[in-house]
Amino acid sequence: MHTGCEHEHTATISKADLVKQLLALLPADCVLFEAEDLNPYECDGLSAYRQLPWVTVLPNSVEQVQAVMRLCHQYQLPVVARGAGTGLSGGALPHPNGVLLSLAKLKSILSVDTLGRTARVQPGVRNLAISQAVAAHGLYYAPDPSSQIACTIGGNVAENSGGVHCLKYGLTIHNILQVKLVDVTGELLVIGSEAFDSAGYDLLALITGSEGMLGVIVEVTVRLLPMPEQAQVVLAAFNDVEKAAAAVGDIIAAGIIPAGLEMMDKLAINAAEDYAHAGYPRDAEAILLCELDGMRADVVDQITRVQLILSQGGATEVRLAADDTARALLWKGRKAAFPAVGRLSPDYYCMDGTIPRRHLPLVLRRIAELSQQYGLAVANVFHAGDGNLHPLILYDANKPGELEQVEAFGGKILEFCVEVGGSITGEHGVGMEKINQMCVQFDALALTQFHAIKHAFDPQGLLNPGKAVPTLHRCAEFGAMHIHHGKTPFPELERF
Amino acid sequence: MHTGCEHEHTATISKADLVKQLLALLPADCVLFEAEDLNPYECDGLSAYRQLPWVTVLPNSVEQVQAVMRLCHQYQLPVVARGAGTGLSGGALPHPNGVLLSLAKLKSILSVDTLGRTARVQPGVRNLAISQAVAAHGLYYAPDPSSQIACTIGGNVAENSGGVHCLKYGLTIHNILQVKLVDVTGELLVIGSEAFDSAGYDLLALITGSEGMLGVIVEVTVRLLPMPEQAQVVLAAFNDVEKAAAAVGDIIAAGIIPAGLEMMDKLAINAAEDYAHAGYPRDAEAILLCELDGMRADVVDQITRVQLILSQGGATEVRLAADDTARALLWKGRKAAFPAVGRLSPDYYCMDGTIPRRHLPLVLRRIAELSQQYGLAVANVFHAGDGNLHPLILYDANKPGELEQVEAFGGKILEFCVEVGGSITGEHGVGMEKINQMCVQFDALALTQFHAIKHAFDPQGLLNPGKAVPTLHRCAEFGAMHIHHGKTPFPELERF
Repeated sequence: MHTGCEHEHTATISKADLVKQLLALLPADCVLFEAEDLNPYECDGLSAYRQLPWVTVLPNSVEQVQAVMRLCHQYQLPVVARGAGTGLSGGALPHPNGVLLSLAKLKSILSVDTLGRTARVQPGVRNLAISQAVAAHGLYYAPDPSSQIACTIGGNVAENSGGVHCLKYGLTIHNILQVKLVDVTGELLVIGSEAFDSAGYDLLALITGSEGMLGVIVEVTVRLLPMPEQAQVVLAAFNDVEKAAAAVGDIIAAGIIPAGLEMMDKLAINAAEDYAHAGYPRDAEAILLCELDGMRADVVDQITRVQLILSQGGATEVRLAADDTARALLWKGRKAAFPAVGRLSPDYYCMDGTIPRRHLPLVLRRIAELSQQYGLAVANVFHAGDGNLHPLILYDANKPGELEQVEAFGGKILEFCVEVGGSITGEHGVGMEKINQMCVQFDALALTQFHAIKHAFDPQGLLNPGKAVPTLHRCAEFGAMHIHHGKTPFPELERF
Repeated sequence: MHTGCEHEHTATISKADLVKQLLALLPADCVLFEAEDLNPYECDGLSAYRQLPWVTVLPNSVEQVQAVMRLCHQYQLPVVARGAGTGLSGGALPHPNGVLLSLAKLKSILSVDTLGRTARVQPGVRNLAISQAVAAHGLYYAPDPSSQIACTIGGNVAENSGGVHCLKYGLTIHNILQVKLVDVTGELLVIGSEAFDSAGYDLLALITGSEGMLGVIVEVTVRLLPMPEQAQVVLAAFNDVEKAAAAVGDIIAAGIIPAGLEMMDKLAINAAEDYAHAGYPRDAEAILLCELDGMRADVVDQITRVQLILSQGGATEVRLAADDTARALLWKGRKAAFPAVGRLSPDYYCMDGTIPRRHLPLVLRRIAELSQQYGLAVANVFHAGDGNLHPLILYDANKPGELEQVEAFGGKILEFCVEVGGSITGEHGVGMEKINQMCVQFDALALTQFHAIKHAFDPQGLLNPGKAVPTLHRCAEFGAMHIHHGKTPFPELERF
């Protein structure tokens, strides 16, 4: 078990006094301070990191968020904001001497503009609840992380979440227009506008994906899209993982932008099949699920081309879902893949690296080699069209030393992603989990610039301390591992 | 005539010594210091603002840019970077005691990756030159400002430029992957990655559109797109500007995303027709040009739907360009509209506000009212699909007081854009021109946050001083004109 904090904040107020002052600002049921009440907040989706907060608050209004922030600023207390706690990188891990600020009670959809196709929502609104609320108008909110039934829009903005459909529809940043942010002093900032571009520096993009380090998101204006007239999905089976990876490139190279283009390898296929009975071919080394959506004529035309490309790419089977029921069943297996893989071993560790799509075959081969080397099985279930990998490393946390092995293995995967020109995170954020790999991805100059940005919003470092951006000191301890662009020891890469 | 600078920098070195030191770093033909050599750099496309720089340098390499920046930093000299000087907001206006840093000699296309569909280019490469260089591979670079034959990619990044096709293909930020930036101290930062998302704060978005305030762009990796299989354009004529504006909303509401959706009013139509003989209907109050591109089947289907929507929206004529020659002719008129309007009066002033698309009819009516009130004619030629207005105010700079009237009129238009939830700039930047309107768009808190960001990159304020973000002092002098969101005196807006 790890605990998170590099920045040690010494308390400037006793816990009893803090609770008393918070109770003057918030109703009694909005302030939690007993260990039993704090337990649900000790970790997020990355359960390897646990820490009880000092106090948890659950404000009912933006004004209460501001009041809490003013109080914390007055006493220089760390604040960690939390949405639904579904994050996978430990970004919402509490601070032992800090306030855990849950946005769970701010869960209203404030307004829907069906003509302008936008919705103003509070941060605690669940991702899927937005689409459900506007479905009657033929609209939906496009980003769809696999946790979309539970995760909240505030957390989505903080992590710049993606999902199965972000190949075509983009990440969270591409689907929001405006954010209201409470800054570290309790002031309310309105960032972005309803127009397609804003004057001034692009603070909206800066805030999005900033993992709670720059402010607390208290309102989001999202873009809504019209539901596509038609959607169809094709399943293709391959007897070779690298052939499947190459077919991904072929589809994109043909100028087709699928709504989703997902890949699963044999281990994942069989786990999902045991769990969801989706009708996947169990003997395949890999399958691709390729969804096309849009106007009917266009989908029909493109799906025919995709089927041809997949066959020419060596697929042993190409299967078009006959109707919406068959389509839902094919997706059911994919969506259940994580928990399904979870049944194969006591624990698994989900990585999240991105690479330029053309390197997919190379990177999958490297992961297989590392899997052999570490003696740890890996299931691959991922957003192939984006080059966003999700290797799931299977292990047993009760075996001494195995978690450390897994972390070392995962680190190697991420470092290879950087090596081929990619990134250590696609959509899960850095949080606690990948903070060492940030030293691999970025040199001291870039990290210094990140710290300068942080300082511009939060000079005392009170917001989510110790997350997302490592200190230079930490990187020095981790080792001088920065890999410079273009200087790779891998000859396969030289032609790029 | 205006001069730009609020920040007065006192020279810490004589001009003769500076020239001598620059000549030690750069070849002799790369350092200009005589008035006759400096003249071409006294303004950009906004010729109302003029100022000779102290010295102009034209480095041949990134290393030379770094050497110049180190020298300027050592002597705390202001630096203004300049691309092709086609900017329309005075962003490249020189500083009287500063170095004008032209990137014109860095004009190589460094590499093209046809598989990954990217190109690495130097900042002085012309926008159109990128598309020309990759045309043989069936690829192109999508953002197409009307100055694309001359403007450079470095300037495009600095201004986050758009163009006719950004409705479908996005602004510059949506079409770049990586930027190399020389910071104020001369260090080289690599920002972004080839993968679809990056770890850390989104510095790429922050740099894009930052108008030379945060660093000097010395390399850009752009995304390339496959040329669409087919493109078709429809012209629709209306006897009422507001009907044309409403039809814009109808097209988008039907779920169609045109590649371009442009509007011209009667004054612009006739000016363009005189100039380009595009065959526009001279008696129309407004025309729309709607281009669809993509797969052939899709374009055919959508163009039929667009024609129907336009007819139902009250168009008096709907005309489909029969072939590519006819299509090019229709666009020729639109592309020539600015110079064509320029022949109607001694001078014109081009505004650049954006509004939520649904407010187009209201805002056009308001512009017409203001035109009456100020007694100054306005031609409207603009990106209607984006809600990006370009009112061209006609005037005569030789008439005493007329420029001041034009500026007041233009200011009123921009303030009304903010009023309806829009922005004071779409694609031309703030520069010198709109610096007062920044005080209308943003409150003191937001401006303070902008200054903190600036400080994180350029603590001494040496990069492009006095542009883009006004001091709070300047805003106080301009008057307490901030219009708060949602508190509008216009009852027409209350339902939104």
